[in-house]
Amino acid sequence: MHLPDRVVSSVLAGLVAFFACDLPAVEGNDVRAADRPNIIIIYADDLGYGDLGCYGHPTIRTPNLDRMAAEGMRFTEFYSAAEVCTPSRAALLTGRYPIRNGMCHDQFRVLRNNSLGGLPKNEITIAEMLKEKGYSTGMVGKWHLGHLPEHLPPHHGFDSYFGMPYSNDMLPAKDAPQGREKFFVENNDYWKTPLIRGTEVIEEHPDQRTLTKRYTEEAVQFIRAKKDQPFFLYMAHTFPHVPLFASEDFHGKSPAGLYGDVVAELDWSVGQVLETLRAEKLETRTMVMFSSDNGPWLIFDSHGGSAGMLRDGKGSTWEGGMRVPGIFWWPGKIPAGSVQHEMGCTMDLLPTIAGLVDASTREQQLDGTNIAPLLLGTGTVDRAPYMYYRGTELYACRLGPWKAHFITKAAYGNPKAEPQEPPLLYHLGIDPGERWNEAARQPDVIDSIRKAVEHHRSTVQPVESQLEKVIQAKTP
Amino acid sequence: MHLPDRVVSSVLAGLVAFFACDLPAVEGNDVRAADRPNIIIIYADDLGYGDLGCYGHPTIRTPNLDRMAAEGMRFTEFYSAAEVCTPSRAALLTGRYPIRNGMCHDQFRVLRNNSLGGLPKNEITIAEMLKEKGYSTGMVGKWHLGHLPEHLPPHHGFDSYFGMPYSNDMLPAKDAPQGREKFFVENNDYWKTPLIRGTEVIEEHPDQRTLTKRYTEEAVQFIRAKKDQPFFLYMAHTFPHVPLFASEDFHGKSPAGLYGDVVAELDWSVGQVLETLRAEKLETRTMVMFSSDNGPWLIFDSHGGSAGMLRDGKGSTWEGGMRVPGIFWWPGKIPAGSVQHEMGCTMDLLPTIAGLVDASTREQQLDGTNIAPLLLGTGTVDRAPYMYYRGTELYACRLGPWKAHFITKAAYGNPKAEPQEPPLLYHLGIDPGERWNEAARQPDVIDSIRKAVEHHRSTVQPVESQLEKVIQAKTP
Repeated sequence: MHLPDRVVSSVLAGLVAFFACDLPAVEGNDVRAADRPNIIIIYADDLGYGDLGCYGHPTIRTPNLDRMAAEGMRFTEFYSAAEVCTPSRAALLTGRYPIRNGMCHDQFRVLRNNSLGGLPKNEITIAEMLKEKGYSTGMVGKWHLGHLPEHLPPHHGFDSYFGMPYSNDMLPAKDAPQGREKFFVENNDYWKTPLIRGTEVIEEHPDQRTLTKRYTEEAVQFIRAKKDQPFFLYMAHTFPHVPLFASEDFHGKSPAGLYGDVVAELDWSVGQVLETLRAEKLETRTMVMFSSDNGPWLIFDSHGGSAGMLRDGKGSTWEGGMRVPGIFWWPGKIPAGSVQHEMGCTMDLLPTIAGLVDASTREQQLDGTNIAPLLLGTGTVDRAPYMYYRGTELYACRLGPWKAHFITKAAYGNPKAEPQEPPLLYHLGIDPGERWNEAARQPDVIDSIRKAVEHHRSTVQPVESQLEKVIQAKTP
Repeated sequence: MHLPDRVVSSVLAGLVAFFACDLPAVEGNDVRAADRPNIIIIYADDLGYGDLGCYGHPTIRTPNLDRMAAEGMRFTEFYSAAEVCTPSRAALLTGRYPIRNGMCHDQFRVLRNNSLGGLPKNEITIAEMLKEKGYSTGMVGKWHLGHLPEHLPPHHGFDSYFGMPYSNDMLPAKDAPQGREKFFVENNDYWKTPLIRGTEVIEEHPDQRTLTKRYTEEAVQFIRAKKDQPFFLYMAHTFPHVPLFASEDFHGKSPAGLYGDVVAELDWSVGQVLETLRAEKLETRTMVMFSSDNGPWLIFDSHGGSAGMLRDGKGSTWEGGMRVPGIFWWPGKIPAGSVQHEMGCTMDLLPTIAGLVDASTREQQLDGTNIAPLLLGTGTVDRAPYMYYRGTELYACRLGPWKAHFITKAAYGNPKAEPQEPPLLYHLGIDPGERWNEAARQPDVIDSIRKAVEHHRSTVQPVESQLEKVIQAKTP
């Protein structure tokens, strides 16, 4: 990517200060190594579009994320690439729809503790791309792209790893209550998801109340240790996925209940990371982004979050399932206090970062867009129509403000897949809650969307599914 | 009220600057006339809790209100005193539940163009209170507290009045289509609500597309004309009540459709008012507040707004019907960038303003609370349990985070009054969307709320209804 020598950012909204903006100097096609920014991705698990103060939640308090937004850029239309965990994370790290690498499945949905599969070796992750450019790379938190040693982060470009290999509910203790009850009692004895360092299990039964703090300590140590070279940190929190646990410092403190406690602790963690960057004087050399892997898990009632005014949640291709918070922070580069109304998605990260560090992406068929012009306030971007997959099935497509649903399946209420012919059509600008079907009045829009879907399908090759490879007897 | 000589405000949240805070000097009980702040109340009509950018709307763009919030204080739990227009406005100006002055009714709901009643003469409005203190008082916009000349603003303490006497849909033209259709065609010929100056009709058939601009011009002129003396301006917009109209400058511009255009024009208007204050160097001497008379009118689909994650809308005592945006702005006094999680309501305005100007409120039985300590960041306040009335019926009561519904009636969906015994009980901190009834687990809370309701009822005296006084033949 050719970057202009000098670009000036414009403040899109808000009170806050205006910074003149220099991009890294360009020598030919190569960004000088010393100018390569540090990259930090902070990913929450099952946090909904409506769960942060700066996205309108009335009682969950997130002063650090609100400040991050006030000092950076908050997207109003930011998407995860899938409505559940494993495919969403595969897409984040590869910039590609999970359909391209077998990291999705209609029945299995996500990798489980009896899975044998993982992210294919030939996929190029952001970590691998950045290692080629001399970055130190570290991962802290929930991986969920294969838990056998050969699938763990150190085999996908990360120098270091500390965290849980899959979700915190995936290995309940044998004597835990059956069904939903165990999710609501805050008993750490019921849950056995292990903790891993590198590729070794270091604790069979960690105390989940300590997880957010321990992840945070690891992240802060990583930043301090790597501060003199460009680094990439991928910090994927275990929470607010159920079962919910908060440390003593946060437990019982939020007016929004335990879910609010847990989100407040995540928010504290984000504050610690940003404060460390400031203390180390790295803030103008580090881009930090915050998002979530999918919408709120509504079936867990008060232990699930909220998609705000969006429809449905995790597991669904309604907006509430896939539109998530998206906040970018890079003082001096990203215009402070800006609200970004253009679309963005987690698959944009790889091509955007590639552009910032001048890495080649020619070997990959990418689905994301380099959104540096949006982030830096220097221009607009062209974006391919956006596909909403549920497993391997293409359920919906967005083209500009219009979204057509070819199949719908509620995750909350009546979970039944319903083919829609003609497709349901919603204008997401006028109708972000997807309530008023405009299909009958907009046949041309539907035609255009059908063509976009047809073209997209022509680019998808069948691949082996990684999710259906499971051992027969479930691991104890 | 005795104000301390000097108080220091604390920033509750956000990035923005910290101001040391001096209250007006106190001489005995009297705030010096020169130190009395100007007061501006800007009131939207049917704007929902979720309709502003700073309350999380993804596509409606409100940069001026977002900036007002970033420079001032945004309440997350701010209430209108009623779920429809007339009672809400009576409460705003008097600081009292409408049940106390006959400005509510179970069948008539609001004053109409055939009404004979109006706000009773013995009620003391904010305007009357401030006139006693030497203020110039002006009103611009929708009154809706009685349209016969003797009920108009000049008889309730306002030196000047320019605006519509009731809602913009209340006098459809004889040849307008019946039913809903006429609301969606943007034909000004269908609507005949007049414009009044003082107590005289000056236009029988104003162009509603020009209303927001004309109100804004009037407001700006008022501020400029009165800038050398303390003034009170009550600016009550006609929109976004249906039928929706926007001027050419805004029509067709919002990604959120016509509703978005209309709200964007209101937002522009707020920006003009604040800009005028800055230009006249009045900003540190003027408190401006912005709110809405009730929730969004959901039955009008894309021509109605959104209550965000709150349940239901206008006409209902679910949160979406009565919780509204609430933004206060007073540079140098109200801590910039603060988010206020304590409750507030429109009935607080009269006692709060009374405190600021040292007016006596001994003659009135007030239901609001002086929230100056919240606004100025100097302390907390005690608040009586909050009553949710629908007409003359007490439907629900809030005590701390708990809300008990004794009767429910959806405004959207199935509008049937349903007595609830035991009452439905929701924890608004954990469950702002009112989904999980906790009544069975919290009998003590219900007992406390019953006692609060009983006490409140003991303070309410029967009064004549102003809304059932109508002429038999409808005004043409």
